[in-house]
Amino acid sequence: MNYLHNTWYVVALSSEVSSQDLFNRKILDQSLLVYRREDGEAVTLLNRCPHRFVPLHFGRRVGDDIVCKYHGLRFDCSGKCVESPHGDGNIPKTAAVLSFPTSERHGFIWVWMGNSELADVNKIPKYTLLDDGNPNSKAYSYMKVDAHYEIIVDNIMDLNHVDHLHCPLVNSTGKLSLNIPKVIEDGNDVSVSWDWHQDPPLEVFSAFLPNPGRDAAHHFSVVWTAPSSILLTASANQSHADDKDALISWNHHLMTPETETSTHYFYATRRNWLVEDALLNKTNLNGAIDAFNKEDRPFIEAAQLEMGTADLNSLKPVLLSRDAAPIRARRKLQMLIVHER
Amino acid sequence: MNYLHNTWYVVALSSEVSSQDLFNRKILDQSLLVYRREDGEAVTLLNRCPHRFVPLHFGRRVGDDIVCKYHGLRFDCSGKCVESPHGDGNIPKTAAVLSFPTSERHGFIWVWMGNSELADVNKIPKYTLLDDGNPNSKAYSYMKVDAHYEIIVDNIMDLNHVDHLHCPLVNSTGKLSLNIPKVIEDGNDVSVSWDWHQDPPLEVFSAFLPNPGRDAAHHFSVVWTAPSSILLTASANQSHADDKDALISWNHHLMTPETETSTHYFYATRRNWLVEDALLNKTNLNGAIDAFNKEDRPFIEAAQLEMGTADLNSLKPVLLSRDAAPIRARRKLQMLIVHER
Amino acid sequence: MNYLHNTWYVVALSSEVSSQDLFNRKILDQSLLVYRREDGEAVTLLNRCPHRFVPLHFGRRVGDDIVCKYHGLRFDCSGKCVESPHGDGNIPKTAAVLSFPTSERHGFIWVWMGNSELADVNKIPKYTLLDDGNPNSKAYSYMKVDAHYEIIVDNIMDLNHVDHLHCPLVNSTGKLSLNIPKVIEDGNDVSVSWDWHQDPPLEVFSAFLPNPGRDAAHHFSVVWTAPSSILLTASANQSHADDKDALISWNHHLMTPETETSTHYFYATRRNWLVEDALLNKTNLNGAIDAFNKEDRPFIEAAQLEMGTADLNSLKPVLLSRDAAPIRARRKLQMLIVHER
Repeated sequence: MNYLHNTWYVVALSSEVSSQDLFNRKILDQSLLVYRREDGEAVTLLNRCPHRFVPLHFGRRVGDDIVCKYHGLRFDCSGKCVESPHGDGNIPKTAAVLSFPTSERHGFIWVWMGNSELADVNKIPKYTLLDDGNPNSKAYSYMKVDAHYEIIVDNIMDLNHVDHLHCPLVNSTGKLSLNIPKVIEDGNDVSVSWDWHQDPPLEVFSAFLPNPGRDAAHHFSVVWTAPSSILLTASANQSHADDKDALISWNHHLMTPETETSTHYFYATRRNWLVEDALLNKTNLNGAIDAFNKEDRPFIEAAQLEMGTADLNSLKPVLLSRDAAPIRARRKLQMLIVHER
Repeated sequence: MNYLHNTWYVVALSSEVSSQDLFNRKILDQSLLVYRREDGEAVTLLNRCPHRFVPLHFGRRVGDDIVCKYHGLRFDCSGKCVESPHGDGNIPKTAAVLSFPTSERHGFIWVWMGNSELADVNKIPKYTLLDDGNPNSKAYSYMKVDAHYEIIVDNIMDLNHVDHLHCPLVNSTGKLSLNIPKVIEDGNDVSVSWDWHQDPPLEVFSAFLPNPGRDAAHHFSVVWTAPSSILLTASANQSHADDKDALISWNHHLMTPETETSTHYFYATRRNWLVEDALLNKTNLNGAIDAFNKEDRPFIEAAQLEMGTADLNSLKPVLLSRDAAPIRARRKLQMLIVHER
Repeated sequence: MNYLHNTWYVVALSSEVSSQDLFNRKILDQSLLVYRREDGEAVTLLNRCPHRFVPLHFGRRVGDDIVCKYHGLRFDCSGKCVESPHGDGNIPKTAAVLSFPTSERHGFIWVWMGNSELADVNKIPKYTLLDDGNPNSKAYSYMKVDAHYEIIVDNIMDLNHVDHLHCPLVNSTGKLSLNIPKVIEDGNDVSVSWDWHQDPPLEVFSAFLPNPGRDAAHHFSVVWTAPSSILLTASANQSHADDKDALISWNHHLMTPETETSTHYFYATRRNWLVEDALLNKTNLNGAIDAFNKEDRPFIEAAQLEMGTADLNSLKPVLLSRDAAPIRARRKLQMLIVHER
């Protein structure tokens, strides 16, 4: 399987794993058990008892430990078998469940699927915008997509599609396509940005600008961090001199491969206007989810069906000048995977 | 994939593709877009934008061109990219969609999946009986079948099964099996015919003969044209001297492989009696479709499950004398495929 | 496929095949037709006409013969084609359906899938307890399980799981796990047994003991016969000296592979108390089926999904001392399969 392993992936939204849950999700083709210790800290184990390979999330919690429901083996949160109810209670040295470094940041639970000695929480992307702000200015969601995660990355790295694919809420009316976007590589990041004017503005901003429905300067900036984390910043401004008047929406798109053809898609957004407005918050989140489900998803999943498990390049796609950003992200990720091996 | 490519296949009934449709169907494992130019002429393109591999039938028409809905590339009806909304509008030379020679004849849209330089519309079987006649004497239908197309061909090339499998509407009461049918090979055709008497006649004819329910001479003739087009002519006659009194039903069975295990089954029929009777026309069509769905289809699809993707001969079938016709058709097709390679 | 062929498998409960049925079931990846001759004797043929590979169970019976519904070939109960309605009626020598030695014993129809010259009915496990006794003291059932048959064998060969997995009806409250069970190998058998006391007794026994709800000696004995037949005897006794007072339940678990990942699970039970009580009989059977479906099945099928088609040992399971019985059964079966090749 063609995955980068020595990296952090989001396995769940923080809100998906409550204090008593034995939460199960498959990522990188491996079924995982995620749960919280009594002190709240998230733990990730391979969701498979090493004795007869049944799922541990069918079991039960005893303190910070998990007891397998099939034959009663008890494992601590490091995966070590600490109790066997059988015979003399002897525990074979091999009786352990694989555990994975886990860290909770910015409203997500992150897991390191590679060599645990290399796990460094400082390598988690610093999405600190999600750490403060009014709760009504922020929202999270989770979706499952039947496509390779890089097809979703391509979708966001080439926002020209916003000119063509989307409804008025976020439609850029052909203006993005006229630009050759600026692309910058920096370490494990690839960034791309667009600046343009449109009249009327994107509907998501228009009514909240000083002069609703009138021309505004727009800016999109996309920062991809390997392997598949993206921060998309979108803004609109009618004040030529003063950026502090800009309406800004920060959109975190975090893709975690489930398998080679399916993806867990985590999304978190924050805005800087009407930050106490819970209804607007909900309306905007639903609008974003709707736009993805009705407009992006059919294209992404249909492309998956056409491409199967073939590598994009092997299919010799037509390359356009504005494809530089997604192509560089794909190349960088491929180099990291090759290097890891 | 074991297909003959340099040949015409039916991709759709003419009636399935209206003037504004972007019609999608997969044949020979390839997803195709079929649509009509403004002058009505049918066009076939590979249903896949060469940029990001999304389906073109999600797009929209502009005159005779197709605009991909994902990033706005515009292709003419030859598949050439004629407009890019991006940056300086430069169009890479490779930006083209594969197009396929297409011709509309006898109520079907035919497409040539092989070398387009070899495409010759004169090689389309001349099913001219469908070109005239009262509209109420003719009917078309389309069905999808979960079986290799040659299993359906076998079914029609060996009409002895009509003695055993079918309901009274078309049951030949054991009479066909007594014959060793006549088989003739001619170019890309294999023909087979049966003559017999039965009393009462086939129900589809009986009530319309001069002496309903009484003995009649019957004739079946099947002409297979490689790779998978069949004209089955069925007739009944109570006038010994005069063929012009015969009731005749012409049945065109055109099988197009979707995949190695599924088939698009196109059917067109015409009769020479009560040619203005719309109700009879509908009743007969429904009877034929019902007979196929309830009687033939379960056997054909079960044989597919048993055979998988194995070649019939590799399974060493028992061969009976009356199997000459389907066996010769299979051999001729296999020779054509080998020769094409 | 990794099956033992020279052995008897249950293909159906006797009660599943009535006098006129053309019964179809796939075992060891082969679709079989099971029916009864007019004298009631069960017959097994490959469920596939050798002419066009359609299922014979779509056909009809004529005396002890089967007529294929597709083209009318008639086969006798040895599989020989005895009549062709076609042309001169000549029957090719190869026109035969594979037949399998079949024997009906103990309420099951057994079939021999290997070399028929080696079929010896004396090799059928002698489950004679099912041959007599009050009808209300015995019950049979059939279930389909989406798992390799050896995972189900493991489940029964390691009854320690009864301490952890099951509801009170059959829960042994941690007592079995304290034992290292006795394991005995003998020819094609592996036996394992447990003795323990519990208070209150297993609910299935408790109310019927002289002192309901009070301590009782319990005994489980499991006898596995290759490849996948098991007799599980469970008993409880409050009379220290006298075994004749014991309540005994005999449980026959017979697993027949359908494919490498699915199993036909046949079950027959008999008890020695309240043998005329039809309601108790039904309650007990439903309790056993419920316990399997709600408690064992989810674990067995989840283990299958985790293990895929990998061999258990290749996955390096943790071995505990009390795993001796299932591990020996797996080894013995593997040796028999290797030897057969």
